[in-house]
Amino acid sequence: MTDHAVIDELKTLVDPGKVLTDPASLEAYGKDWTQHYPPAPTAIVLPKTVEQVQAIVRWANRHQVALVPSGGRTGLSGAAVAANGEVVVAFDGMNRILDFNPFDRTVRCEPGVITRQLQQFAEEQGLYYPVDFASSGSSQIGGNIGTNAGGIKVIRYGMTRNWVAGLKVVTGTGELLELNRDLIKNATGYDLRHLFIGAEGTLGFVVEATMRLDRAPRNLTAMVLGTPDFDSIMPVLHAFQGKLDLTAFEFFSDKGLARILERGDVPAPFETPCPFYALLEFEASTDEVANEALATFEHCVEQGWVLDGVMSQSETQLKNLWKLREYRSETISHWTPYKNDISVTVSKVPAFLRDIDAVVAEHYPHYEVVWYGHIGDGNLHLNILKPEHMSKDAFFASCATVNKWVFEIVERYHGSISAEHGVGMTKRDYLGYSRSAAEIACMKAIKAVFDPNGIMNPGKIFAPE
Amino acid sequence: MTDHAVIDELKTLVDPGKVLTDPASLEAYGKDWTQHYPPAPTAIVLPKTVEQVQAIVRWANRHQVALVPSGGRTGLSGAAVAANGEVVVAFDGMNRILDFNPFDRTVRCEPGVITRQLQQFAEEQGLYYPVDFASSGSSQIGGNIGTNAGGIKVIRYGMTRNWVAGLKVVTGTGELLELNRDLIKNATGYDLRHLFIGAEGTLGFVVEATMRLDRAPRNLTAMVLGTPDFDSIMPVLHAFQGKLDLTAFEFFSDKGLARILERGDVPAPFETPCPFYALLEFEASTDEVANEALATFEHCVEQGWVLDGVMSQSETQLKNLWKLREYRSETISHWTPYKNDISVTVSKVPAFLRDIDAVVAEHYPHYEVVWYGHIGDGNLHLNILKPEHMSKDAFFASCATVNKWVFEIVERYHGSISAEHGVGMTKRDYLGYSRSAAEIACMKAIKAVFDPNGIMNPGKIFAPE
Repeated sequence: MTDHAVIDELKTLVDPGKVLTDPASLEAYGKDWTQHYPPAPTAIVLPKTVEQVQAIVRWANRHQVALVPSGGRTGLSGAAVAANGEVVVAFDGMNRILDFNPFDRTVRCEPGVITRQLQQFAEEQGLYYPVDFASSGSSQIGGNIGTNAGGIKVIRYGMTRNWVAGLKVVTGTGELLELNRDLIKNATGYDLRHLFIGAEGTLGFVVEATMRLDRAPRNLTAMVLGTPDFDSIMPVLHAFQGKLDLTAFEFFSDKGLARILERGDVPAPFETPCPFYALLEFEASTDEVANEALATFEHCVEQGWVLDGVMSQSETQLKNLWKLREYRSETISHWTPYKNDISVTVSKVPAFLRDIDAVVAEHYPHYEVVWYGHIGDGNLHLNILKPEHMSKDAFFASCATVNKWVFEIVERYHGSISAEHGVGMTKRDYLGYSRSAAEIACMKAIKAVFDPNGIMNPGKIFAPE
Repeated sequence: MTDHAVIDELKTLVDPGKVLTDPASLEAYGKDWTQHYPPAPTAIVLPKTVEQVQAIVRWANRHQVALVPSGGRTGLSGAAVAANGEVVVAFDGMNRILDFNPFDRTVRCEPGVITRQLQQFAEEQGLYYPVDFASSGSSQIGGNIGTNAGGIKVIRYGMTRNWVAGLKVVTGTGELLELNRDLIKNATGYDLRHLFIGAEGTLGFVVEATMRLDRAPRNLTAMVLGTPDFDSIMPVLHAFQGKLDLTAFEFFSDKGLARILERGDVPAPFETPCPFYALLEFEASTDEVANEALATFEHCVEQGWVLDGVMSQSETQLKNLWKLREYRSETISHWTPYKNDISVTVSKVPAFLRDIDAVVAEHYPHYEVVWYGHIGDGNLHLNILKPEHMSKDAFFASCATVNKWVFEIVERYHGSISAEHGVGMTKRDYLGYSRSAAEIACMKAIKAVFDPNGIMNPGKIFAPE
């Protein structure tokens, strides 16, 4: 615990009233969406400028105070949780869009800009910010960068990494680094920008980011296709990918669909019951493209890969089809799911999913498993639903046992134990399933370069020594 | 100099005959295209396997021998030059394509695969490897990764970085790291893959790479447009970018065009003489797209931004228009050009180019300056041609003075002193114009993590201490 005098000194470094120590604030700012860990920060500080962030970091070095960066607190790995008396640095007060350049198609943002805010700003300019996911309405750009956020359009647009033209970061020594100068081409030594993207605030804090925008998509059109089995989804993906530039390719199971339809506010895509569904999206920029999509659909039906399907004919229909996917997280959250966010290369998905299904079914026949995911990029979300009469603690404890088996399969398939949620605290003990001991040693040595006193989000990514 | 016994030990680590010490090999393998530095390696070693590379690195650590990686030796910054008794590790013998996966659209390559070989392999699969530049016929994938090669399609496809799904590297301690496992989504700590891309072999050597392929482009079509002045090129770019997905946007000056036409084997694009020309390319996948391009052309003429233009109607015409750009390096090489490869953000290009032109014209009115570049990504190639009766040494010496002025302007515009050629030896003394002292200190500390004994390509990127 940090003593009063030290917190009083912190108060002199920021605007009046921007250090919070009341219980409600400590509770609110001390956690993310994981909610596994009881929040226990010492204080919350809300800087307004880069200089204030630097002053906070220097203060933390002087007093050996651990800092936890906090954005929209929508993380799913506990990377923004302060459970050990840390001081939370919340970026809510640094939420301005600073500059827009139409020739460069770039937006310079403070880290607290909300993802949706950036998306809407882009739309107002006739452009597009393509990184999109369930928590876009509350997640912040700084957090997106810290976790290299992915989401539903990765098959076409890639991860957040692809859209970061330049970064300003304050390292663990309080040094301000400006990385990449917003350039497209810059071959002047190591690209430190990419090192900070996905580093979960363990090397330094993002204090400004220049994000690229893309042209607006033209006439986005979705199809939902029902398949007779999971294995048919891959040839469907391959067939469509050969003909169209897909902007999304998602899948979900009949169990997941049933949960959504129970809500009563989303229509079923079609009547034919199918064990698996694919949702795909593309720009129907001309009639030719739409006809190509229909011809490919017919080909897939002839091959027996698809049983039924529907294609959106309007913006409303497009939105309704997407709700089948988007409502998923929200809907299953009623069953307190244990989430795993795993990935393999796309071609390995069917065998990988079968192996995991078998292990879970064998050891936990009484658990309901809901799969969904971004098949187009190899990312599967494995959700184990809590049986109604089981306590949360007992359920999570038994899921931790499942974890080991799941991650052993991930390792065998040479995959990732965290595709897009990050490592944080929830995955740090399992890091060795996806990174070698030599890699982890290198990562720790790199952390020591930028954060020699170990004050930047300690205990995240790496277990405390 | 490394003594005979040490070289004899090296010979035991690789296949028979794969350590070369004859003068012709030392000369050939000791240099790249810069040719500023007399090659002086001690030996050339040609490993055949990853294990042999590891053994070479461990040997180098034991005997404190400096190693220089060597690919196609087409570099323009001296990064692959061995001028100080180093041992050159040449990857010519590791040139196999190991695997192709049509679902993942990935190719696993040894580092010595030639860029053109990968491009052709992709074509044979009905796919496309989009990184392309003048030296594609002899540059190697390992070298492309080491310099994060760019080229002519960056506006659409990005740099080499974007196409690297996974890497195997041997670090300066001989450790083999497998980076990113070829995954699209992988949020398990620092992305070391991106650290090695563009590191010019100073952290370790790339021994295997998994490269992504894209779908083949449809009906590529080029336009060459003549503009009344340089400033008109930017609104032309902006107008076309708003309507089409450009795959290239290049520019060149009338002086450059005149040099090409003197060759006699390429037709002029049209008769109207213009001071500047833009070459743009897009996929005319439907008639609608081609019509949109023509309408945009007409709009640009009406605005006074374009004086004349031509659009390719066939594969042959496409190739002929591209020759106007591609022959450039080759043609001006007759005048022993001093090359600078600089970049700024796209919107700053006109003012930046004007300032540099003014400085060069003021101080060196007798030098002919040929500009060309990838305007669409802010990368300009400034070529100063050697006056006929001036000695090469005197010319290069006076260009070094120009360098300082050019780089001061680069710094003022917050640009890069090396957009795509890398730092190597030619730019290392100027690194401070594009990277802060704090950044350079971090980079050196990172080098020490991966290469504690300083044997990996020493004296490149960073000046010797």
